Amino acid sequence: MQKYGTINIKDATLEPWENPFPDRNYTIDIDFPEFTCLCPRSGYPDFAIIKISYIPDKTIVELKSLKLYLNSFRDKSISHEESTNVIFDALKNLLNPRTLKVTGDFNPRGNVKTIITVSG
Amino acid sequence: MQKYGTINIKDATLEPWENPFPDRNYTIDIDFPEFTCLCPRSGYPDFAIIKISYIPDKTIVELKSLKLYLNSFRDKSISHEESTNVIFDALKNLLNPRTLKVTGDFNPRGNVKTIITVSG
Amino acid sequence: MQKYGTINIKDATLEPWENPFPDRNYTIDIDFPEFTCLCPRSGYPDFAIIKISYIPDKTIVELKSLKLYLNSFRDKSISHEESTNVIFDALKNLLNPRTLKVTGDFNPRGNVKTIITVSG
Amino acid sequence: MQKYGTINIKDATLEPWENPFPDRNYTIDIDFPEFTCLCPRSGYPDFAIIKISYIPDKTIVELKSLKLYLNSFRDKSISHEESTNVIFDALKNLLNPRTLKVTGDFNPRGNVKTIITVSG
Amino acid sequence: MQKYGTINIKDATLEPWENPFPDRNYTIDIDFPEFTCLCPRSGYPDFAIIKISYIPDKTIVELKSLKLYLNSFRDKSISHEESTNVIFDALKNLLNPRTLKVTGDFNPRGNVKTIITVSG
Amino acid sequence: MQKYGTINIKDATLEPWENPFPDRNYTIDIDFPEFTCLCPRSGYPDFAIIKISYIPDKTIVELKSLKLYLNSFRDKSISHEESTNVIFDALKNLLNPRTLKVTGDFNPRGNVKTIITVSG
Amino acid sequence: MQKYGTINIKDATLEPWENPFPDRNYTIDIDFPEFTCLCPRSGYPDFAIIKISYIPDKTIVELKSLKLYLNSFRDKSISHEESTNVIFDALKNLLNPRTLKVTGDFNPRGNVKTIITVSG
Amino acid sequence: MQKYGTINIKDATLEPWENPFPDRNYTIDIDFPEFTCLCPRSGYPDFAIIKISYIPDKTIVELKSLKLYLNSFRDKSISHEESTNVIFDALKNLLNPRTLKVTGDFNPRGNVKTIITVSG
Amino acid sequence: MQKYGTINIKDATLEPWENPFPDRNYTIDIDFPEFTCLCPRSGYPDFAIIKISYIPDKTIVELKSLKLYLNSFRDKSISHEESTNVIFDALKNLLNPRTLKVTGDFNPRGNVKTIITVSG
Amino acid sequence: MQKYGTINIKDATLEPWENPFPDRNYTIDIDFPEFTCLCPRSGYPDFAIIKISYIPDKTIVELKSLKLYLNSFRDKSISHEESTNVIFDALKNLLNPRTLKVTGDFNPRGNVKTIITVSG
Repeated sequence: MQKYGTINIKDATLEPWENPFPDRNYTIDIDFPEFTCLCPRSGYPDFAIIKISYIPDKTIVELKSLKLYLNSFRDKSISHEESTNVIFDALKNLLNPRTLKVTGDFNPRGNVKTIITVSG
Repeated sequence: MQKYGTINIKDATLEPWENPFPDRNYTIDIDFPEFTCLCPRSGYPDFAIIKISYIPDKTIVELKSLKLYLNSFRDKSISHEESTNVIFDALKNLLNPRTLKVTGDFNPRGNVKTIITVSG
Repeated sequence: MQKYGTINIKDATLEPWENPFPDRNYTIDIDFPEFTCLCPRSGYPDFAIIKISYIPDKTIVELKSLKLYLNSFRDKSISHEESTNVIFDALKNLLNPRTLKVTGDFNPRGNVKTIITVSG
Repeated sequence: MQKYGTINIKDATLEPWENPFPDRNYTIDIDFPEFTCLCPRSGYPDFAIIKISYIPDKTIVELKSLKLYLNSFRDKSISHEESTNVIFDALKNLLNPRTLKVTGDFNPRGNVKTIITVSG
Repeated sequence: MQKYGTINIKDATLEPWENPFPDRNYTIDIDFPEFTCLCPRSGYPDFAIIKISYIPDKTIVELKSLKLYLNSFRDKSISHEESTNVIFDALKNLLNPRTLKVTGDFNPRGNVKTIITVSG
Repeated sequence: MQKYGTINIKDATLEPWENPFPDRNYTIDIDFPEFTCLCPRSGYPDFAIIKISYIPDKTIVELKSLKLYLNSFRDKSISHEESTNVIFDALKNLLNPRTLKVTGDFNPRGNVKTIITVSG
Repeated sequence: MQKYGTINIKDATLEPWENPFPDRNYTIDIDFPEFTCLCPRSGYPDFAIIKISYIPDKTIVELKSLKLYLNSFRDKSISHEESTNVIFDALKNLLNPRTLKVTGDFNPRGNVKTIITVSG
Repeated sequence: MQKYGTINIKDATLEPWENPFPDRNYTIDIDFPEFTCLCPRSGYPDFAIIKISYIPDKTIVELKSLKLYLNSFRDKSISHEESTNVIFDALKNLLNPRTLKVTGDFNPRGNVKTIITVSG
Repeated sequence: MQKYGTINIKDATLEPWENPFPDRNYTIDIDFPEFTCLCPRSGYPDFAIIKISYIPDKTIVELKSLKLYLNSFRDKSISHEESTNVIFDALKNLLNPRTLKVTGDFNPRGNVKTIITVSG
Repeated sequence: MQKYGTINIKDATLEPWENPFPDRNYTIDIDFPEFTCLCPRSGYPDFAIIKISYIPDKTIVELKSLKLYLNSFRDKSISHEESTNVIFDALKNLLNPRTLKVTGDFNPRGNVKTIITVSG
């Protein structure tokens, strides 16, 4: 069975911004089509579109810090399932949003395409 | 944390028209694919499709005045989240519709695409 | 505020046919992509796809009479909202169907695209 | 008002097969894009995609017999509404499935496109 | 009526991996567009996209072993309905997931397209 | 080796119209997406889009007579290669156009798609 | 054989503008997707996209006058071939451009789609 | 460097038919989207669309024999380059056509997509 | 007839970079989908995709300076024909490239779509 | 003006294979959609599809070594123009093909999309 080491994301810091309309439920959908990391098994690069959808509470995520954070996976060895869940946890902890969904839509590997969807 | 100044939309006035079928619930969907404003952080232009969907009550919005109103954002420095919410508020105040949804579907910036959806 | 005159559709008569399967609920979806009328404000021609979806009761609409009826709007000055509601009323009165939805999906005018949906 | 004669489908026989997994609900979706019959009014050929979706009970329909059955409409004079309902009845009687939906998605005639959907 | 022999999948073994996030419901969607087997009636090859969607419990399926397993149908004579159900059973038994759906989206045969969907 | 009997198209007559602009070279492109005939080998129906492109000389083909002519293949047993060439010859003899191209774009049979193109 | 009366376009006047760059060959491509006229045979409305491509010499066509000119065909009874050639002649006479191509891409009638292309 | 063994295609025989129109140049385009063989290096299955385009001389290829011939590669270990060239040679030898082009449009392997085109 | 004032592009300066491969002909294709300026006649905003294709000689255009240059048209009143030609001249003068093509692909105005193409 | 350091590709070696059909001209088209490198100016990652098309002479490029070679740009700081030309030179030197074209089709940066095409 596969083992996971500790994920240490030290290269980038997600930055919260004040939500300008905290009294209203509205949805923010974000697509980042240039996510890349390394396959923990083969060492080859993986590619994905990361999709984020949330209803903010007191804070929203600043977009440039999000881009830098997602770029920081470039040299990490991390599976499809784990990277999507790690991004979910990071946003959940930062924003404590009213709803949150994170999708990792990965390019095929060995002719197999995988999409991971975490919501909560 | 980001700060927002007062939004002063003085260049255009949304015009209400009498709803010719006020006794019936029906839906009006409007797409305006040529919305542009200025990024409050970088000063660069932003571009979006603004989508409006509502069930009118006593009034409907006149389409030419809507176009002029949306054009009036051309020189405003305003974030994605704020412009979508401001348009929602303006239509809500003008029409008091039975339902209203406003979507700001923005072109990518820094390879990050954002869609803001406000409904109520 | 806008005013509407009386709509007098004298050029065409919608024809009912006996529903061959009145004991069963089934759906009839019709698309008519070549609807055109005149804008009551500018006088310019407007173009739309008219979409009709209904569950018939005792009668169904004969398709050639429907085509002639929709063609009869060619010289009428009528707004998007009104033409869609007028078609809805005509079919409602003719067929008294179990459900009925009429959509007027209009080409953009002044870069603004409008879709009107009436159901009941 | 239109009249319908007796439909006599003598050229083809739908063949049932034993459902290999009768203890489980699963869905079978079938598309037949080459359906053609004759318009009972004009005599011109009509063309449609017939779509079938069902959850089988004890039997499933054998696909070659289905193809021959659908081909047998080639020389029949039958309306859009009737052909879709007739196919629905034939499958209902043969298979007695847990659910069944039949759609007749017809090519436009006189610029009018019609889709008939029967489910039960 | 058709008969089915025993399916003996001896050429490949599906491998379970530990689910790194068992305390959370998340969805894994997998597409395998290069499935091929043999028609039990005609002997001709069949082709399909196999789609798998599940919420894992304690284990997830390792993707390379899945690919080898799906490749192992290449020389089997098996119907559309049976292959989809067999794959469903194999994953159900291996993973005991919280939800599972398997779809066999087959290329047309005799101009008839078939999609089999099993969920549970 | 295959044999061809005599083709006798007696059910429809192509009608020439006077070319209103014979002093100028211009192109007429026609698509007829509802062509069907019978396979001379299997007896099953075949389906095709017939595409015609020509520069007229003294006459153009009247479109309703063309439609009736193409419909007249419905009960003929004729191969892909022969039907396309027969249509080419009929138009060539009728119109003696400055250029002529006829394409028979047939639906797949046995998973093999065929397009026949005759020009002269 | 068909007969053509005199075309009298009195409702609109095409307006020339000075070409701001007459010393250089450059191309102007124009699409007008809302052309409608009347079929001289059946009286039913016809619909087309008119496409114009030219290299201007001393003048270019003013776009609003072009729109009004094309709108003026709304009540004319005119065939596909003739309307395309008439528009070609009107632009040729007005602009005497270095090259000119006019295409009338008409919606299907009786399931037959026609495209007329005139260039010179 | 790679080595190639002898290709022995014993399972299927391409069958020529008499060209019904040998006095005229016309083109036959064939697509076969379900080609599969085995990678000579990894042993994994490869998938491709085989496209054939030719102007026949005295003979044309019978389509069912072509399908059986292309199916006969299912268990062969053969590279992209070699299979495309072998098919080209087989058709060249059988038909001696006036022109011939064969394309092997292969599914990606290791994220690399390859298309081989042979013409002569 | 239309008149043009002097174009004064003072807000941005196109910057040349040394061509790293001046001894070889190669092509650089650039798309800028967010061009906007003002209609000199109506005052309304216009929108276009600007496409540039060139074979460089000694210099290439730096992309950020190009973006700022194209953004500088935001407040200019300039026609479709003139803006495309002005961009062509600016790049021609800056780079003296071996070939150059500039296309202004404008959004429809008054339902008329225009594309201007300058090459030299 | 921009400066370029020495490119040292030490991580991967392109491997030639013997061309199995050197007596015939045929074309090999390769797409690699997952190319990534670093922008020499901003340090941000760039993404591209690399497309290669060549007619081989005595050797062809082995596809796995090509994939590793293209992956080796992941940590290089290199411009769009230079990376495309460097790949062209590497393949030219390795294969000395009869023709060669290399295209770098890069994702937009700052809303500007660039495609570099080198052929020889």
